[in-house]
Amino acid sequence: MKDLKLVMAKNHDIITPKTEIKIGNITVGRDFLVIAGPCSVESEEQIMKAATAVKAAGANMLRGGTYKPRTSPYSFQGLGRIGLQYLSVAGLKTGLPVITEVTDTRDVYLIGEYADVLQIGTRNMQNYSLLVEVGKLKKPVLLKRGMNATIEEWLSSAEYIMNEGNPNVILCERGIRTFETLTRNTLDLSAVAAVKGLSHLPVVVDPSHATGRADLIRPMSLSAVMAGCDGLEIEVHPSPEEALSDKEQQLTPEQFHILMEAVKKTLIFKEELKEKG
Amino acid sequence: MKDLKLVMAKNHDIITPKTEIKIGNITVGRDFLVIAGPCSVESEEQIMKAATAVKAAGANMLRGGTYKPRTSPYSFQGLGRIGLQYLSVAGLKTGLPVITEVTDTRDVYLIGEYADVLQIGTRNMQNYSLLVEVGKLKKPVLLKRGMNATIEEWLSSAEYIMNEGNPNVILCERGIRTFETLTRNTLDLSAVAAVKGLSHLPVVVDPSHATGRADLIRPMSLSAVMAGCDGLEIEVHPSPEEALSDKEQQLTPEQFHILMEAVKKTLIFKEELKEKG
Amino acid sequence: MKDLKLVMAKNHDIITPKTEIKIGNITVGRDFLVIAGPCSVESEEQIMKAATAVKAAGANMLRGGTYKPRTSPYSFQGLGRIGLQYLSVAGLKTGLPVITEVTDTRDVYLIGEYADVLQIGTRNMQNYSLLVEVGKLKKPVLLKRGMNATIEEWLSSAEYIMNEGNPNVILCERGIRTFETLTRNTLDLSAVAAVKGLSHLPVVVDPSHATGRADLIRPMSLSAVMAGCDGLEIEVHPSPEEALSDKEQQLTPEQFHILMEAVKKTLIFKEELKEKG
Amino acid sequence: MKDLKLVMAKNHDIITPKTEIKIGNITVGRDFLVIAGPCSVESEEQIMKAATAVKAAGANMLRGGTYKPRTSPYSFQGLGRIGLQYLSVAGLKTGLPVITEVTDTRDVYLIGEYADVLQIGTRNMQNYSLLVEVGKLKKPVLLKRGMNATIEEWLSSAEYIMNEGNPNVILCERGIRTFETLTRNTLDLSAVAAVKGLSHLPVVVDPSHATGRADLIRPMSLSAVMAGCDGLEIEVHPSPEEALSDKEQQLTPEQFHILMEAVKKTLIFKEELKEKG
Repeated sequence: MKDLKLVMAKNHDIITPKTEIKIGNITVGRDFLVIAGPCSVESEEQIMKAATAVKAAGANMLRGGTYKPRTSPYSFQGLGRIGLQYLSVAGLKTGLPVITEVTDTRDVYLIGEYADVLQIGTRNMQNYSLLVEVGKLKKPVLLKRGMNATIEEWLSSAEYIMNEGNPNVILCERGIRTFETLTRNTLDLSAVAAVKGLSHLPVVVDPSHATGRADLIRPMSLSAVMAGCDGLEIEVHPSPEEALSDKEQQLTPEQFHILMEAVKKTLIFKEELKEKG
Repeated sequence: MKDLKLVMAKNHDIITPKTEIKIGNITVGRDFLVIAGPCSVESEEQIMKAATAVKAAGANMLRGGTYKPRTSPYSFQGLGRIGLQYLSVAGLKTGLPVITEVTDTRDVYLIGEYADVLQIGTRNMQNYSLLVEVGKLKKPVLLKRGMNATIEEWLSSAEYIMNEGNPNVILCERGIRTFETLTRNTLDLSAVAAVKGLSHLPVVVDPSHATGRADLIRPMSLSAVMAGCDGLEIEVHPSPEEALSDKEQQLTPEQFHILMEAVKKTLIFKEELKEKG
Repeated sequence: MKDLKLVMAKNHDIITPKTEIKIGNITVGRDFLVIAGPCSVESEEQIMKAATAVKAAGANMLRGGTYKPRTSPYSFQGLGRIGLQYLSVAGLKTGLPVITEVTDTRDVYLIGEYADVLQIGTRNMQNYSLLVEVGKLKKPVLLKRGMNATIEEWLSSAEYIMNEGNPNVILCERGIRTFETLTRNTLDLSAVAAVKGLSHLPVVVDPSHATGRADLIRPMSLSAVMAGCDGLEIEVHPSPEEALSDKEQQLTPEQFHILMEAVKKTLIFKEELKEKG
Repeated sequence: MKDLKLVMAKNHDIITPKTEIKIGNITVGRDFLVIAGPCSVESEEQIMKAATAVKAAGANMLRGGTYKPRTSPYSFQGLGRIGLQYLSVAGLKTGLPVITEVTDTRDVYLIGEYADVLQIGTRNMQNYSLLVEVGKLKKPVLLKRGMNATIEEWLSSAEYIMNEGNPNVILCERGIRTFETLTRNTLDLSAVAAVKGLSHLPVVVDPSHATGRADLIRPMSLSAVMAGCDGLEIEVHPSPEEALSDKEQQLTPEQFHILMEAVKKTLIFKEELKEKG
């Protein structure tokens, strides 16, 4: 892994200092990050409901897609700018920083006006122009692993952002594409542990896109905590069955609330395990 | 998933009754199974040392390869019958049931004389003659997932064994083959959770072969517990650096001891989490 | 690629001498091999009809599964010994040498009594006991590539057979498992060209299993010829729609006849191209 | 395959009319397209030499990367605008239309001023903003298959371009990512044949990126012709060993000349085969 001077840790055993990124009231890399919210912002009411619910359950960041990359041009493409405003307002009212995906270099500045964190999606992990542009903006970036990207390529893409002078990169494992079809993708938790030994960057896990199945989000979230991740990104929708995208994998607020209780306990347990050996 | 009448649960929510398999003092499916030992039985002294060490650390089953399937015909192929005897003696002296791989229909009866559990390796998951033969023997079988097998194919292979009248099948996830090269295989923990929702069979996880890296075994073992597995299979060697096979992925007895402490605490935590919600 | 002393060519540019295997009237490695016949031997009449038809169209070897490896234990498993006899008789009556799959070490000798060539299927490419056993028998062996096997592993499996003193190994590329689902597997023709530069062994291509689609067999067969293969294995059934296995990928005798005409012309063209540059 | 109304053929047997795209003197979809040139435009002299050589050998389109997507930010990134000018001049002097990759929505108009065809690379196949933008420009687009894209996703991306009113889409198969490491990617020629049965769009094959090995380009090019492709894209460099990128896979002008002779003969043979049956 040549040429990864910015993202790689000098010493595999003692990776110091870890990257810490201050966003609103939380410090990613120190505090456990829980990003939650719907796949897409669908209306002012829907995102407000979602924001209130995920905040109440303990999430500390709000997600919501506004410019959606969809396989077919005839699928719902997101609300765009008005969606950004709804998301931003929902974040302000609940006190949650917001994250949304950017897919076009020309939108980086605009989205940066509304969002606290810019998300680079799996399909754009090697869209180098976009990486350079979010690098220049210097706002925090969540960089999803390409569904076909090796760990080395993923870290190389982070290097693109950091090389523009933006050290605020959060990595996100979201499943890789394999031959298995019973899950949407294959969640690669060993990649999380491997990256924690290679890089000082925080790593978040997205079990929603990795599995594509609401019933697998709880076990995979708790597994991810034990694998050493620094946060989770979970899709939550006020009424998943009415969602305009990703119906099968979004949790209800109630399911998310129960999940959060388990995640919090697991984090405490993990901390104790580390201290007492 | 047609034609999986024997391995599939009737009701996804309440999979009752779970399969329980009595082996020596333990009941797989109820007690957490910890299989440990070297990749290969190399000498009487080596397997005895390994057995004593893993027993002391809390393992409840001893592994050791005697008929080894190796990619090259010029690699160490295992000690064969004498290895079986060493393994058997080590098991008897420590009170641990023993497991070893069978690769040939003609060896099933012989290996069944020495081993408490017969292991079907990843390369033989679709060796149907072998599945039928271990099905006829009726001794417990640990069925590893083929490195390229879908979950459906894996369960279909279990069906072959059960269809011969042998219900004592333990499944083992050991990583699938993907494009990633930083780990030996990609551990598919979502498959564990998915299978627990489909089948009444116990599922064990082998992080040693999945990752191929000693440093990833701890995080992946704890993750596997939280994903809901019924046991672990871990490679432990008295002196990994001198091992005749799989050097990079075997733990020292000390590393295994530390791991077991963490696994036990995680199991207790998980149990509490289930009870208190 | 260490330890491949038997299958590897000394000199990549001039691979001499090529392995040539005399079987009946043909010399594989010199004459172009065309193996054709049904997926499974289903009855005396069916295999006799198939044999007559493929012989008439220009095939020089007859295939037919008798011991079938099927994903489910409830699928048709082949006729076994009586199927072997039907196949053998059909071969004798038409003057075609016959090939059938062996899946169990205990069957090697019996099948060797009836078949001119033993086929090792994709699921058994790393069934090393079986490789050793067919190595000892010394009859020609067609070794299919494992659907998840690298080229290096494939050649290592050939090494197992040759290491027992049996140099009569024919390799067969039959598609690898990838994420694509529109074809049954992904035919890897670059592997054929790569192997021709590495090894002196003949390489045959099976477009039937690779694509799983009758409509793709013609273009893939002609492509395979231009990639440099030494033969083809094609599934042909008197009435594909009534076949007990692999319905979608078997050609009718008429389709096969038309295909053979095109294959023959392509072989002549390829020979001319080589001579005139 | 829902929602592919623009790229899909009405009738699988008689796909009429095929898309034909007039570019300079050639009509893609009718005339066989041969795109050739270096991986990157490195200097005025280099691209001029390459253009003259590939024209002499029979290529009818000139390629050259100017805005290069590279895994590492520290690798050569292409000459950018000045490279575009060199490429354009070389095209004008030799009478060859030129193609170059666009990676950023903001560059589409500029590159459209210089290039006759815009190439969408494998990493940007699902960069939907970019697809929309090249759709609006209405210049011919060569759409490479994502290295992890299914055929359905690939056609869906073409649909994005056509849905903007630009019917001038050329598909390009360039290898998919699998577990095999002896070749850079795995060339999926069955995808070419499958797409020819699904869509009216022309399909070009890029054996250079698919195999990553100069020695495999000839067999894969001839195979691709027999699989039914409408053209080839081949990397040719005046001195491959001095190339700033993709050294191992670029042909010398001499090698390309010899390849073209074989390609031309194979095209004539294929035409005869179609006519005479």
